Amino acid sequence: MDAPLIDNEIIENIDISDDVRAAFDAADGDRLDTLLDSVTISEALREVLTFSHTERDALIALLSPEMASQLIDEAPLELAGELIEGQETARAVEIFDELDSDVQADVLAELDQEDADAILAGLDPEDAAGVRRLAEYDAGTAGGLMLADAFQFRPNQTVGAVLRSLASDDEDLERYHGQHPYIVDELGHPVGVVSLRGLLTAKRSAKLEDIMVTPLTVDAQASLDTLQDLFNDYDFLGFPVVDEAKALVGVISRTAVDAAILARAEGDNLRLQGIVGDELRTMPLAIRSRRRLAWLSANIVLNIIAASVISAYEETLAAVIAIAVFLPMVSDMSGCSGNQAVGVTMRELSLGLVRPKDAMRVWMKEVSVGVINGIVLGILIGLVCWAWKGNPYLGLVIGLALALNTLIAVSIGGVVPLLLKRVGQDPAVASGPLLTTITDMAGFFLVLSLASLMMPLLLQ
Amino acid sequence: MDAPLIDNEIIENIDISDDVRAAFDAADGDRLDTLLDSVTISEALREVLTFSHTERDALIALLSPEMASQLIDEAPLELAGELIEGQETARAVEIFDELDSDVQADVLAELDQEDADAILAGLDPEDAAGVRRLAEYDAGTAGGLMLADAFQFRPNQTVGAVLRSLASDDEDLERYHGQHPYIVDELGHPVGVVSLRGLLTAKRSAKLEDIMVTPLTVDAQASLDTLQDLFNDYDFLGFPVVDEAKALVGVISRTAVDAAILARAEGDNLRLQGIVGDELRTMPLAIRSRRRLAWLSANIVLNIIAASVISAYEETLAAVIAIAVFLPMVSDMSGCSGNQAVGVTMRELSLGLVRPKDAMRVWMKEVSVGVINGIVLGILIGLVCWAWKGNPYLGLVIGLALALNTLIAVSIGGVVPLLLKRVGQDPAVASGPLLTTITDMAGFFLVLSLASLMMPLLLQ
Repeated sequence: MDAPLIDNEIIENIDISDDVRAAFDAADGDRLDTLLDSVTISEALREVLTFSHTERDALIALLSPEMASQLIDEAPLELAGELIEGQETARAVEIFDELDSDVQADVLAELDQEDADAILAGLDPEDAAGVRRLAEYDAGTAGGLMLADAFQFRPNQTVGAVLRSLASDDEDLERYHGQHPYIVDELGHPVGVVSLRGLLTAKRSAKLEDIMVTPLTVDAQASLDTLQDLFNDYDFLGFPVVDEAKALVGVISRTAVDAAILARAEGDNLRLQGIVGDELRTMPLAIRSRRRLAWLSANIVLNIIAASVISAYEETLAAVIAIAVFLPMVSDMSGCSGNQAVGVTMRELSLGLVRPKDAMRVWMKEVSVGVINGIVLGILIGLVCWAWKGNPYLGLVIGLALALNTLIAVSIGGVVPLLLKRVGQDPAVASGPLLTTITDMAGFFLVLSLASLMMPLLLQ
Repeated sequence: MDAPLIDNEIIENIDISDDVRAAFDAADGDRLDTLLDSVTISEALREVLTFSHTERDALIALLSPEMASQLIDEAPLELAGELIEGQETARAVEIFDELDSDVQADVLAELDQEDADAILAGLDPEDAAGVRRLAEYDAGTAGGLMLADAFQFRPNQTVGAVLRSLASDDEDLERYHGQHPYIVDELGHPVGVVSLRGLLTAKRSAKLEDIMVTPLTVDAQASLDTLQDLFNDYDFLGFPVVDEAKALVGVISRTAVDAAILARAEGDNLRLQGIVGDELRTMPLAIRSRRRLAWLSANIVLNIIAASVISAYEETLAAVIAIAVFLPMVSDMSGCSGNQAVGVTMRELSLGLVRPKDAMRVWMKEVSVGVINGIVLGILIGLVCWAWKGNPYLGLVIGLALALNTLIAVSIGGVVPLLLKRVGQDPAVASGPLLTTITDMAGFFLVLSLASLMMPLLLQ
């Protein structure tokens, strides 16, 4: 047997686009399966996404349910929902059946109620009940992220019984789900867990109650932050999840938590750039356009507020028109300084290094950077302005305004995400617009009021 | 035995700050250990970070090497390096010894050459060799992310031998390192892997060569993207890593890859906000200030280029001073639209849904959004402008400029990250400044040149 070697170059260089198109035109499902299987699943998904919406649905209908489910598992949730909705119900159920229960619940949440009900009706009643149970929990909790099935035994069963069940069961212990044999009492409470090492080294006739240890359990309502701390603190691959009655309802895996944390970081990233509601370009134009406009139109209002400061000083501007050249520069530069502070705070928040109550400490740290960077940038832009427009006092006005506004911007940028978090708002959505509006207003005000004060000197 | 329940509220509500301070003042290392152990490791790290630099180093010197190493493991790398450098060499070696080999190599890379050599000299020669080997690989490759030790057997050993070694070994199979018993030939080439299920269900006298399967191996040079695809495609917890001679050099775990991907997403996030080089507020002021200034001063140059467009039209501005009120608004709004497009492209890049060669497809998608949003925003701001300044033609100029500039901004924002990636630049660093400069210039130009064209109407 050859040892297959995973090699970046080899995988990347295969271009299956033309073959996929030909197989699709020939409606050859087996060939499509083979082709998509020959590349990584993420490459396979990209191939499928190059087709139009209608073609895409037809292509997925041609695939084996296994391949279709792999693509849906790989797709971001909002896309996974679309792909399922593009299939006929019976087919959707077939594909659905191949997914893990936690993915099923997540995808179901993306569907219309009607479609969701139709699919649930098609599933095995026990599986459907499991998915319904998962769907009751919020997405960012242990309940929403867990697998609904756990590997359960009773205290008086033997090691041999577990081994026999392992040998016959589909459930593969070494897969990444963090499954361990859990021992539950008559009420379904997890009272023990057996380590793999325990299973490997104990006699086959040993009773589980004699080799089990008490498991740590996680409440189904536990937040993603709690789960992150938990997996940080313990090296385990999974924990049993219990409901309010402390009964075992599922297993939360390290992999599911890691994936949720990554998705959160990427969502934050998107929201910092001004998009609420995880856009993908495969979504319908109307949705993409509307989601972006929602944020932009709020921003228009904030911009008008900032612009009204300029409007109040039109006389000053008319007297020294060169100021208009530097107004956007001062507001843009301060906005950048403020965004840097937002970025550091968002990172420290996500790394768990700061909490809302640390606002004062963060502010002091930003003030020191703000003073230094304000002075440096102020001198730089002041000199540029003097050299360009030939008036040292104009340089003084612009440089001083930028220096002061840099200090304001980093203070706001560093602290605002913490304050938003404290009042329960999403710092990634609101920090940017708040910061920009305040620094714009402050920047315009500083430049124009300083210019008014120094008007006689500016007109020399 | 009570089953300990992980409960968010209980953990959060413990405030150990005063007790930690008291124990530190009393130089009571045992008490500090107990206190820090009573909260999550991330909370423990936050506590330590509330101390000044000098106090922090003294505090860590009081802790047990185990607790100190947990804190260092939890800290972001740049901070971990600082913490190690704050300890005396003998102590640093003790703490270092408790870390996993992949973390050792990462932290070592953060240290001065001198400090790194001193620590390596203090380690067990075999461990030091392992770390040196890891340090040879780039951070974002399988070699840089792997654990240097693998669980190795020979083909003619028995299942019983593996089980005995498991029972005596510290190495815990169920921990998250993705360790499996690998079978290597006389040249160190991995020729087999034994599944846990295989171990559990085979006779103890069975030879490993009879139950082993051929392992998938990963090249030590494999990139993070390749590893991401690999763990996406296979459910395994780990893969054996081989060098150029195809000899086994370590094991790459799913957990290490997930952590690296998360760190990359958070780094992207920071760079999009204008910070290059992963700042933390615990870093020295000079470094923080310098890193931010590096990016800002490049930005000043770009801003001057954009401002020169305004400067070229000072006469137009002087004639209709109200235009100055709307200039920053047009550039800011287009900048926001462009950033939304950057955000979506960055997300699709990190999800693996687009590649640089998809630039044309992405552009077409952005054009449709740009046309719709440009028209909507142009009409909105045009009406505002007309109502505010009482001149419909001024509204027309501003609205038309914003509509056109929105289209330009989303086109650039959507495509520029892909083009930067194609030419080997980091899209997270350069997309924002490039976008802002071009949209500012285009926005100023559109407003002012349209105004010049329509000057007679504007002066009515």
